[in-house]
Amino acid sequence: MKAIEIDATEARERLKELGEGWAISEDGKSLQRDFKFRNFNEAFGFMARSALSAEKLNHHPDWFNCWNRVNVKLTTHDKGGLTDLDFRLAKAMNRASAGL
Amino acid sequence: MKAIEIDATEARERLKELGEGWAISEDGKSLQRDFKFRNFNEAFGFMARSALSAEKLNHHPDWFNCWNRVNVKLTTHDKGGLTDLDFRLAKAMNRASAGL
Repeated sequence: MKAIEIDATEARERLKELGEGWAISEDGKSLQRDFKFRNFNEAFGFMARSALSAEKLNHHPDWFNCWNRVNVKLTTHDKGGLTDLDFRLAKAMNRASAGL
Repeated sequence: MKAIEIDATEARERLKELGEGWAISEDGKSLQRDFKFRNFNEAFGFMARSALSAEKLNHHPDWFNCWNRVNVKLTTHDKGGLTDLDFRLAKAMNRASAGL
């Protein structure tokens, strides 16, 4: 999957499409969201669904889990910033969390 | 699952049983290990196996994943330190990583 670099203006536009919860980091290099679920079962269910999407995109999150919480950071390490892939993975994670 | 508190001496003894990689944090309140795998597939496979064990023990890790790495911290939050459950989960995680 090719990583298409995007500039700060486009990043802000695409951030709006992602909906509530997502933010661009202060340095502009990553997308972040803290997901909160009812328990570990739901949190890990979300992670499993997201992992399948990540593997398909060949683009993976940096994420931290503590029981019902999953803190997600998305960046394209080899481009040193945000690309199309980060927004695609963010959307997939929104879908993975839907209904949980 | 009842959390049996253990003191610093016992913790050091039990740390030896866990084998290479595990360490007790400086404040003595957590067990830590950084697992490294060949790729995300293996890292998340390890996490999925560990998650099943965690749910069975009703004791869950604090963990961070970035592609092939999983940084694990085990502590018993409601006891404010290490208990039997942390060492049981550590052993389960060793088993989960075996062969990966």
